[in-house]
Amino acid sequence: MSEKIENERPGSTQRRPAPSRRSEVAPFIAMDVLRDAKALETGGQRILHLEVGQPGAPTPEGVRVAVDAALSEGRIGYTEALGTTPLRERIARHYRDAYGIDVPPSRIVVTTGSSAAFVLSFLAAFDVGGRIALPAPGYPAYRNIISAMGLETVWLETDERSRWAPTAEMLDEAAARGRLDGILVASPANPSGTVVAPDQMEALMTRARELGMWFISDEIYHGLTYGAPCDTALQHDENAIVINSFSKYYCMTGWRIGWMVVPEALVRPIERLAQNIYISPPALSQVAALAAFDCTDELERNKAVYAKNREILMDALPKLGFDKVLPMDGAFYAYVDVGRFTNDSGEFADRMLREAGVATTPGLDFDPVRGNRYLRISFAGPTAEIEEAVASLDRWLKR
Amino acid sequence: MSEKIENERPGSTQRRPAPSRRSEVAPFIAMDVLRDAKALETGGQRILHLEVGQPGAPTPEGVRVAVDAALSEGRIGYTEALGTTPLRERIARHYRDAYGIDVPPSRIVVTTGSSAAFVLSFLAAFDVGGRIALPAPGYPAYRNIISAMGLETVWLETDERSRWAPTAEMLDEAAARGRLDGILVASPANPSGTVVAPDQMEALMTRARELGMWFISDEIYHGLTYGAPCDTALQHDENAIVINSFSKYYCMTGWRIGWMVVPEALVRPIERLAQNIYISPPALSQVAALAAFDCTDELERNKAVYAKNREILMDALPKLGFDKVLPMDGAFYAYVDVGRFTNDSGEFADRMLREAGVATTPGLDFDPVRGNRYLRISFAGPTAEIEEAVASLDRWLKR
Repeated sequence: MSEKIENERPGSTQRRPAPSRRSEVAPFIAMDVLRDAKALETGGQRILHLEVGQPGAPTPEGVRVAVDAALSEGRIGYTEALGTTPLRERIARHYRDAYGIDVPPSRIVVTTGSSAAFVLSFLAAFDVGGRIALPAPGYPAYRNIISAMGLETVWLETDERSRWAPTAEMLDEAAARGRLDGILVASPANPSGTVVAPDQMEALMTRARELGMWFISDEIYHGLTYGAPCDTALQHDENAIVINSFSKYYCMTGWRIGWMVVPEALVRPIERLAQNIYISPPALSQVAALAAFDCTDELERNKAVYAKNREILMDALPKLGFDKVLPMDGAFYAYVDVGRFTNDSGEFADRMLREAGVATTPGLDFDPVRGNRYLRISFAGPTAEIEEAVASLDRWLKR
Repeated sequence: MSEKIENERPGSTQRRPAPSRRSEVAPFIAMDVLRDAKALETGGQRILHLEVGQPGAPTPEGVRVAVDAALSEGRIGYTEALGTTPLRERIARHYRDAYGIDVPPSRIVVTTGSSAAFVLSFLAAFDVGGRIALPAPGYPAYRNIISAMGLETVWLETDERSRWAPTAEMLDEAAARGRLDGILVASPANPSGTVVAPDQMEALMTRARELGMWFISDEIYHGLTYGAPCDTALQHDENAIVINSFSKYYCMTGWRIGWMVVPEALVRPIERLAQNIYISPPALSQVAALAAFDCTDELERNKAVYAKNREILMDALPKLGFDKVLPMDGAFYAYVDVGRFTNDSGEFADRMLREAGVATTPGLDFDPVRGNRYLRISFAGPTAEIEEAVASLDRWLKR
C-alpha cells in the first residue's frame, strides 16, 4: 500500500501511499463501453445502445405519480436500515401472489439495488478467505465484489451439455478440489438467458445443503421469462438467500432499489451491516418501489417488447453469421459466439461500436476464460433500435 | 462460517452455514434508537427526535422543482459510475467558490452518500489487514465499515487538552506502537462539534504525509460552522481524500448522495470498484444534488435555525446539570458528559426515551471506551422541538 519515494525535502525519504491491490479488480466493461458510447454520441455519432442491461422503457407512470406526491410533502429523510415497513410488507405479499409461498416481512431486506444485496449477503455469510462457487459465464460484478471483499471465486464452467446451467455434479467436482463456503446462482442468468429447470434447481440446492454451503439465488430477472417455468429458490429451501431488484422487470435501474429475502439468522447481522454501510436505501426509491407493484399492465406491455425483440434476434442473428447463441429462456440478452469472426471480442466490439454504431458488451466481462470469443447483446431497448442495429450489423459484417 | 449439526435425514451429518464473524459489527445505535422511537410513536407516544443526525428541514424547494422536471421526462437510468458530468463539474466549481482552489472535475467522484465514499476510499486505499487511525469519539460507521472490510482501527483518544481534536503528537504516539496505513479525520466532527484549527490541520497532515499514510478528510459538516475558520484538507495537501455529502448542509439525507475528491492515482481504481459495487449513484438524486447548489438562501435560513438551537442548548444544558459539553464549533450536535447521572448512558438514554419522550444517542456509538458516560443530542430539528425537549428533560431530571 505504499512505496518509498524521494522526498521533496532534501536528505529525507518518504513513502507515498499507493492504491490497494484489491482495487485492481477488473472494470465492469459494460460500464466502460457505456462511457465510450456516450462520448461518441456527444461527438455527434448515432449510437444504438445494446450494451447495458437496462430497459429502454421509462419508469412506469404510476411510480412517477406516487413519487411526485411524496416529493411535494418535502421531507425525504433516512428510513429504517432494512427498509420501510409498508414496502417490506408489500414485497412479502408479492411472494404469496407470484409464487404462493409465505415469507414474513421481517425476513425482507430492502437494499440499494441488488448491488447492495450482493455486498450485504457476502459480508454477512463469508469471512475473509471465504470461497464462493460461481457459474461461468456470469454477471461480472459477482467476482469483482467477491475479490474486493477479500473472498475467492471458484469457477463452475457451464456449457451446452446442461444448457449452460450449473449442475449438482459441477458443484461436487469443485467441492472435491477444495472447501466451498457458498454458491451463487442466477436464473434467468445474465448473459446466457438460461433458466435452471425446477428439478435441476432442486438437485443443485440439495447438494449445496449437504455440503453445508450458503445458497445465494440471484432472481433479478424473474418476471422476464418467455415460456420456461421458473421457481424462486425459496420454494426449494427457505434458508436460501434470495436477491431481487426493481431494475429489470420493473424498469427502474436508476433508482437503485432492490431487495433480499434472508433466513432469520441473517436478519440482525445484515441489519447491523446495512446500518453502517448504507444507513438506509434511498427514501424516494422506496416510495417508487411500493408503487411499482401496481403497474403490472404497463410492465407487461414492456415485456411484450422484449419478447418481440427476442423473436427478431432469434431470426436475424443466425443470418448475420452469429449462429451459436445461448438459450435466451429469460432476461433480455443474447450471448453469441463470435469465434468465427474474431479471437478478441473486446477489439471486435470496439470496432463494431465505432464503425457500425452498435454498442455491445464483450464476453470477457462475463467469462474471463472463454469470453474472448463471445459478445452480449441486450435487447431491452425499443424494437426500432433492435431492427436498426440488425440492419447496421448486416452492412458492417458484409464489408 | 459453518457448524456441524445433525441432519434431518438419519445416519448423516450436515453442516449448517452460520453468519460470518465480520457480521458481528456493532449496530449503529442511533439507527436502533430511531427504530425504537418510531415504534413508540406508532403506539401513540409523543417523541422528540434528537437522536439521528438529520436536518428537520425538508429538501429545498429548488431541488424538488428540478427533480419534478426530471421525473416527468421519465427515463431514470444508470449514469456513469463516477457520476454525471454536469454534477462533477458543478462540484468542482464549488471548490473554487467556497475555498478558492482549483480541482479538476475528473477528480470528483459522486457517491451514494458519504457511506459509499467511505467504502470506496477504504477499499481503494487499503488491503485486508490495513490499519487506520481514528480519533475517538467519532462517527461509529467508520470503525464498523473498517472491520467489515477486513481492516483494523487504531484509536487516537482525544480529550479536553486539544479541544477534542486529534494532533500530530497523538499520531506519532500511535505510529510508534505499530504500522499505520491511514488516518481519517472529521472537521467539524461528529459528535464533538470540534473544528480542527487550520494550523493544527496543517501539522497533522504534514505528519501523516511524512509517515507515508493516506489522509482521509470527512468534511460532511462543512458549511455548518458557527464562527470557527474551517479549511478543506485540499488546501493543505492535494493528495488528501476528501469526503462530503448532500445530507447535512444541503438537507438531503434520504437521497443518499455525496461526493469525494480523490488524487489522480485513485480515480481509476475507484471507478472500477464503483462500477462493480454500486453501478452508479441514484440518478434522480444526482439531479437533486445539482440543483442544491442554487438553494443557498433557503439553506442559510435552515442553518440559522441550528445556530439558534445551539444557543438555546448552550444556555439550557448546564442548567439541566449537563455542564460538561464538548466544543460545538460546528455540525449540529451537543456531546454531553452525563457521568454525574449514570455510568450506563445506554440505559439512561433508553429511560429518557420512554419516560421523557426524548430520543438521543448513547455515547457508546461514538466511543467504545468512554462512551458509557456520554450522550449525543442532535439540534438539527425545529427550534420548538428543542425547547420542548429541554422542558421535558427539566421535568424528568427533577423527578
